[in-house]
Amino acid sequence: MQFAARTERIRTSHIREILKVAANPAVISFAGGLPNPALFPVAEIARAAADVFEREGQAALQYANSEGLPALREWISARYKKIHDLNIPPDEILITSGSQQALDLLGKTLIDPGRPVIVEEPAYLGALQAFAMYEPRFHHVPLESDGVDVNALEHLPMIRGNPAGDDAYPSGTGDSASRNRSGSPNSEPIFYTTPDFQNPAGVTCSTEKRRRLAGLADRLTIIEDNPYGDLIYDDDSERPPLLRSLDDRVILLGSFSKIVSPGVRVGWVCAKRPLYDRLLIARQAADLHTSNLTQMTIARYLADNDLDLHISALRKYYRANRDCMLTALSENFPAGALEMIRPGGGMFLWCRFRDPISTDAFFHDALHENVLFVPGGAFYPDHDPAGDRYMRLNFSNADPESIRTGVERLARAYQKNYSKQLGGLTKDSTAGAISGEIL
Amino acid sequence: MQFAARTERIRTSHIREILKVAANPAVISFAGGLPNPALFPVAEIARAAADVFEREGQAALQYANSEGLPALREWISARYKKIHDLNIPPDEILITSGSQQALDLLGKTLIDPGRPVIVEEPAYLGALQAFAMYEPRFHHVPLESDGVDVNALEHLPMIRGNPAGDDAYPSGTGDSASRNRSGSPNSEPIFYTTPDFQNPAGVTCSTEKRRRLAGLADRLTIIEDNPYGDLIYDDDSERPPLLRSLDDRVILLGSFSKIVSPGVRVGWVCAKRPLYDRLLIARQAADLHTSNLTQMTIARYLADNDLDLHISALRKYYRANRDCMLTALSENFPAGALEMIRPGGGMFLWCRFRDPISTDAFFHDALHENVLFVPGGAFYPDHDPAGDRYMRLNFSNADPESIRTGVERLARAYQKNYSKQLGGLTKDSTAGAISGEIL
Repeated sequence: MQFAARTERIRTSHIREILKVAANPAVISFAGGLPNPALFPVAEIARAAADVFEREGQAALQYANSEGLPALREWISARYKKIHDLNIPPDEILITSGSQQALDLLGKTLIDPGRPVIVEEPAYLGALQAFAMYEPRFHHVPLESDGVDVNALEHLPMIRGNPAGDDAYPSGTGDSASRNRSGSPNSEPIFYTTPDFQNPAGVTCSTEKRRRLAGLADRLTIIEDNPYGDLIYDDDSERPPLLRSLDDRVILLGSFSKIVSPGVRVGWVCAKRPLYDRLLIARQAADLHTSNLTQMTIARYLADNDLDLHISALRKYYRANRDCMLTALSENFPAGALEMIRPGGGMFLWCRFRDPISTDAFFHDALHENVLFVPGGAFYPDHDPAGDRYMRLNFSNADPESIRTGVERLARAYQKNYSKQLGGLTKDSTAGAISGEIL
Repeated sequence: MQFAARTERIRTSHIREILKVAANPAVISFAGGLPNPALFPVAEIARAAADVFEREGQAALQYANSEGLPALREWISARYKKIHDLNIPPDEILITSGSQQALDLLGKTLIDPGRPVIVEEPAYLGALQAFAMYEPRFHHVPLESDGVDVNALEHLPMIRGNPAGDDAYPSGTGDSASRNRSGSPNSEPIFYTTPDFQNPAGVTCSTEKRRRLAGLADRLTIIEDNPYGDLIYDDDSERPPLLRSLDDRVILLGSFSKIVSPGVRVGWVCAKRPLYDRLLIARQAADLHTSNLTQMTIARYLADNDLDLHISALRKYYRANRDCMLTALSENFPAGALEMIRPGGGMFLWCRFRDPISTDAFFHDALHENVLFVPGGAFYPDHDPAGDRYMRLNFSNADPESIRTGVERLARAYQKNYSKQLGGLTKDSTAGAISGEIL
């Protein structure tokens, strides 16, 4: 059997393999990116579904339009206005089967083989997987503690050498290869970013950097993925603006996965025409539409319940989980062993060992103690060895007791295998780009 | 904004534009390919959903595996055994968001630009749309009243010239272009077919032709799409075998859309490894998984209800609708004006005007009378003018009274615009390839 070349490059996700081990009930998993099922509004969604069946059951089970349920698109539009003072009309919102599908449709619609796609490093693997199917040329820009390294981004040859560049970037400074490609079809770079509570790094992009990024929208097609934006645990009085608020060419993705339920697979992408129309055609060809029953159920749930109240409960629970995990790490690991940014939201701690420990190896030590995480290398598709010293710990899917027990197991794995042979802490080891506080 | 070349070729489906007009309640539509919502098992599915929420609500709302719900895959496997005496293990079944998604994933997994894809003419447009995104070279083989023209298929250069060809097709008879491509990656042709009650033509492939097609599985990757197979209205004692029953390399697609509900978007593809694994990776990248809530609800519905009883009710109702439409056409149109095959199942009548009437023009005459159909040209992507004289009439989505009224309107549009100027019937006009009985 012959396969398309695009499928030859794709590996099964490291993470999915790990998640299979997590099925063992003796194992405490900090590996998955799962929201906590104990917080799902099961009764409310059950009532919403019952209501949909009673009022409009036939319509819920029939084919529907590819754009998505009008009531749902109106709700999303109204929420952008309410939370972000942002005007996105419902007819620029396309409902997708999770924001993962939006990534796939964007890849299909925008990426010819070889088109430059710039991603953060470390990066969300699901996006790389979706885009990789369309065979772009990936470029990686380091993530810093306040967001992507905008200087490095601005100095990429394909940004500097773009004919749309302003005087600050005279075309003479672009490399000849990129200048040759400039102007040819599909050579404009795409930049994919998660400015709020990035996965895996938990980092939030500063307002200043957001302004600089938005200023590049002439030269870049910017995709802003925002699945975690509502999961804020600290003071949200100075929530930075969405990139989409700063430039309306930015393509904005959202999802109910982290704030209502991931299992229903309802997300969306906000895009202006003509892109919207191309996405819609790609959507029709891909699977016609998202489950109508599911869309109607979520729309009914949102109409009958106060989502902000639910999100407040999520924030409170996840904030406590985050703090519990931070405390457990500092109590169980030797002082100075781990470095990390305390994430202001989202679902992950991104921990770096100060000593040269490979988390790929440590993963097996931890598994021996029945605790799981994702080794950092998984998020460095370029195989930058910098990633080897990181581990991603999910704090949303466990309860506080499991978090404490799991961290004790992690620390035991560390003590058994590393603390002695390393002979204490190397205080002067250089910190990674996005390392911050020392625990 | 720059788009991928693949999206430049795709037109919005003719049919979707038509369906927008159908929203006007004064219009009777025979255009869509919709099952009848009055027959949806709303109460049973509502009960199943309530049960899922009560028993396993948290699991239903959580992320799930990409292969699909094990219980659902086991049910599908058992049904193939029961109905077709066919052994397809559950782990060769991938749940998809409708069989449309299976087509997209097959395109993504199998088609490099330029790979030959052979389709029936006329053909299901959704498949062509899905495949077109991956830029194959399409080849069209005429459909006859007993299925695809296998002689024409066998004589395509890329079939004759294939090095796997047997003695009956000496390599010297292949054209040089196809022989040059032979053996290069991704040059093996794909053949996409709907052997049971094809859309739009309603034609069923004979057992003899199925055997000949299966015999080509050495030289062709065969995709068997079977959304309508259970909608049989005549004697089903001699149901022809699935192609998949004749050769286990055949990729088989199925769906609950026509027998339970299309709005839930649950279909599947049966494929052996290594294809299965590639499809799974493509699936993960595309949208992770089909709504878990929906899968669990359908699985619960199937466990608690007798699907065959439900299918019997569908058959009875749709059979009556088909016969009602056939009777109304023969009573309202002049004798000999229309030719068609009486379909043994499915959802469509495929009618050919004996006189040289363009159904593209007739569409507007009919719209004037508030009745809709799909002009045949829509199903001839190669723009073969043979399609212009056909119209596709859906008989599943209307009730008998609307069918009678709608056909009266169609006949009125015909009488007003064509019967006089054509000066009666041209009895000796040559029939199209798949025309049969004369009404």
